[in-house]
Amino acid sequence: MVQIKMTTHLLGANELLANKNRRLFEEKGMLVINLMSSPGAGKTTILERTIEMLSGKIRIGVIEGDLYTDQDAVRIGNKGIDVIQINTEGACHLDAGMVGKAFEQLPNSELDLLFIENVGNLVCPAEFDLGEDYRAVVLSTVEGNDKPMKYPLIFHQARAVLLNKTDLLPYTDFDLDRFREDLVRINPSAEVFEVSGRTGEGIEDWLQWLLEEVKKKQLLR
Amino acid sequence: MVQIKMTTHLLGANELLANKNRRLFEEKGMLVINLMSSPGAGKTTILERTIEMLSGKIRIGVIEGDLYTDQDAVRIGNKGIDVIQINTEGACHLDAGMVGKAFEQLPNSELDLLFIENVGNLVCPAEFDLGEDYRAVVLSTVEGNDKPMKYPLIFHQARAVLLNKTDLLPYTDFDLDRFREDLVRINPSAEVFEVSGRTGEGIEDWLQWLLEEVKKKQLLR
Repeated sequence: MVQIKMTTHLLGANELLANKNRRLFEEKGMLVINLMSSPGAGKTTILERTIEMLSGKIRIGVIEGDLYTDQDAVRIGNKGIDVIQINTEGACHLDAGMVGKAFEQLPNSELDLLFIENVGNLVCPAEFDLGEDYRAVVLSTVEGNDKPMKYPLIFHQARAVLLNKTDLLPYTDFDLDRFREDLVRINPSAEVFEVSGRTGEGIEDWLQWLLEEVKKKQLLR
Repeated sequence: MVQIKMTTHLLGANELLANKNRRLFEEKGMLVINLMSSPGAGKTTILERTIEMLSGKIRIGVIEGDLYTDQDAVRIGNKGIDVIQINTEGACHLDAGMVGKAFEQLPNSELDLLFIENVGNLVCPAEFDLGEDYRAVVLSTVEGNDKPMKYPLIFHQARAVLLNKTDLLPYTDFDLDRFREDLVRINPSAEVFEVSGRTGEGIEDWLQWLLEEVKKKQLLR
């Protein structure tokens, strides 16, 4: 049973390890994004496209979280960048200790941008600080516009929300106005990007924001 | 923090309460289905359609699990059947104690079929027996065919797997052959239904199976 790890004591330990990660990332002037979503919302596809389009511009690394497989890490590795796989062996989220150990294994830790792709889950990952700068949540249009109201914590904490699979909007009942209204209520300061990882539509704005945030982080070094 | 509830001790308590629920459901000769999926895979839409199409044939009740809202319970209630909402207040799954209490609140507990719609999550709900006869997992085509391999426990335990949103198949990269192969590897005895909750395609087979299982359960009474 994995859940016995998650006691209040160990959550305290998670905070200590998250702060340790954060100090390390700050020393390196590296922007760190904790990417979260439901299973199948399109985190990995968005990462693939982001890596392709920023290739040669900045140095990117990825830590991949998955219960048991390394399928996503293989996809990311195919893009020619360093990736470390964490298998949680059934646990429904990453924790700061796992991320700290994975980071040590990255062949090159001198990066401008580190993505941590969390386990596909809209509940548990929201409870665990990994030492990231920002949390980004991907929601796919096909999941329905009611998700910010149904999973408020994860949307409330997000610095960026990517509404993915906009290419499928015509085939769904997704209410875009209602989604935007609900999101503003839960998190008025979130950056919202409407994208299609598959077609590339809207990805440019997301990349622009990432590059600006990478620059800001480096200036703070 | 919700996770502190989930210790091995309390998991033991969950088993006791699940067995208590199971005995009660058996006395009543009621088929109980624990319905699980990612957020937005279409559990509620499938329930709505199931209730509509079985209206007047059998007596159905629903227990709805959600973190905070009652949106799904309102949708189900609009179909004219009894529904009880459980709000887990952040917990990522239902447990047997919650279900037992909710069942007591059902205005009419003389049912042929009780659905328990779990919290949208492919990880945590798989760990908790609710006293159900069967678990049914809904996967939407838009989530990708890799999900059974990535979330094997929940697919392994399922008596029925509903591949939903088949109407969106032409717009996705979902590999149907690969999905079927993977699922057979993880769970060779699962009943698989390829459906569209939205258009109703394929729902008939699912209803047929439900009616047969309801009948079997009543014979065992």
